Amino acid sequence: MSEHIVKAYDTELQDLDDMIVEMGEATARQIQDSIQSVITRNTELAKAVIDLDQGVDQLERKIDALAVRILALRQPVAADLRRVVAALKISNQIERIADYAANMAKRALALNDIPEVTPVYVLPRMVKIPLEMIRGVIKAYVDLDLEAAYRIWQLDEEVDEMYMSYLRELLTYMMEDPRNIGPCTHLLFIAKNIERIGDQCTNIAESIHYMVKGTPFEESHIESAS
Amino acid sequence: MSEHIVKAYDTELQDLDDMIVEMGEATARQIQDSIQSVITRNTELAKAVIDLDQGVDQLERKIDALAVRILALRQPVAADLRRVVAALKISNQIERIADYAANMAKRALALNDIPEVTPVYVLPRMVKIPLEMIRGVIKAYVDLDLEAAYRIWQLDEEVDEMYMSYLRELLTYMMEDPRNIGPCTHLLFIAKNIERIGDQCTNIAESIHYMVKGTPFEESHIESAS
Repeated sequence: MSEHIVKAYDTELQDLDDMIVEMGEATARQIQDSIQSVITRNTELAKAVIDLDQGVDQLERKIDALAVRILALRQPVAADLRRVVAALKISNQIERIADYAANMAKRALALNDIPEVTPVYVLPRMVKIPLEMIRGVIKAYVDLDLEAAYRIWQLDEEVDEMYMSYLRELLTYMMEDPRNIGPCTHLLFIAKNIERIGDQCTNIAESIHYMVKGTPFEESHIESAS
Repeated sequence: MSEHIVKAYDTELQDLDDMIVEMGEATARQIQDSIQSVITRNTELAKAVIDLDQGVDQLERKIDALAVRILALRQPVAADLRRVVAALKISNQIERIADYAANMAKRALALNDIPEVTPVYVLPRMVKIPLEMIRGVIKAYVDLDLEAAYRIWQLDEEVDEMYMSYLRELLTYMMEDPRNIGPCTHLLFIAKNIERIGDQCTNIAESIHYMVKGTPFEESHIESAS
């Protein structure tokens, strides 16, 4: 390959990374804002999160288009090929996380229509680890940092535990007073979305494993890595 | 390319399709069995669905490995390249549907531990369209049938409507008697899983659109197609 082509190719791979980072940052902000809109009963903020989801969808399409372009024109092999395939997967995984944020914002809108009765105060604490996970896993992707990806993968257990304990708390509110059932159902789904964000971050960690190692991720790998 | 290589290449593309079909069929069966296990309170069946999920995960990995192999060795372009990229996406989308089935089977296990009080009779009716969607969309993938993919895409509206109406029904049960709150919460999540299966089938329809047309799916395309 001529020096010129090699340079264009490098630029394309860099663009792919930049877009993944942009998508990850936008999505982390959406998660934060959606929870903020629940807590502060801020309808405008919730609507802004819902509107921004289209931007993330567009970024996914741009990443896909560039990945297919690289596959067609550069015909990458080995590590480069895996990087492009991983970008295809990770863009899809981030898009799903952005969907969860948009869903939470929709729940925020519904919650704003009903009187404040419910235990929302848990949510900012609950979303802290998933936020750390999405930001960390994008950094691990850029740095090709398997150790960091493993650490993030392991954090999901804590998210699951918080989810289960919040679920039990919500059920007691619902049983105490039937008027809590409506709002608590929304909170139930918000909590489930937070839990799914954690899940998706582990999937991204697994995609990073595949990208770096070229083999599918197995839980046993964690043992040998730590 | 020599005739021999062309033949091997065709066989690989055919293998990719066959595995997608196998994965789709296994997943449709899992959905059916998970609902059946709720209705008949069949713990063994629910456990079988949960166990089978690993088989679907393995199929996804096999499809991914073959797709990457084809990309590396055959360096496909144009329609073939899009087909391989679509297979990567669709295998991931089917895997998510199988996850929803496994989740429903886990809810079935939890429901079997509590006395029968709740409106489960709606579920078989509710899952009918999503089942039709998953089977139809896999057929549309094999036949490269855009019209069929569009028809399936449109069915999702009906799934959403049934979900909303069932949700309201469940809330009345919960308000009627606090003892219904626990089991109805499980049914709430089962219903949400069914609704998400419909969503995922529309995503597969969109991947088929991309594969055939080479452009991202826009809702407006439906108008011009019908």
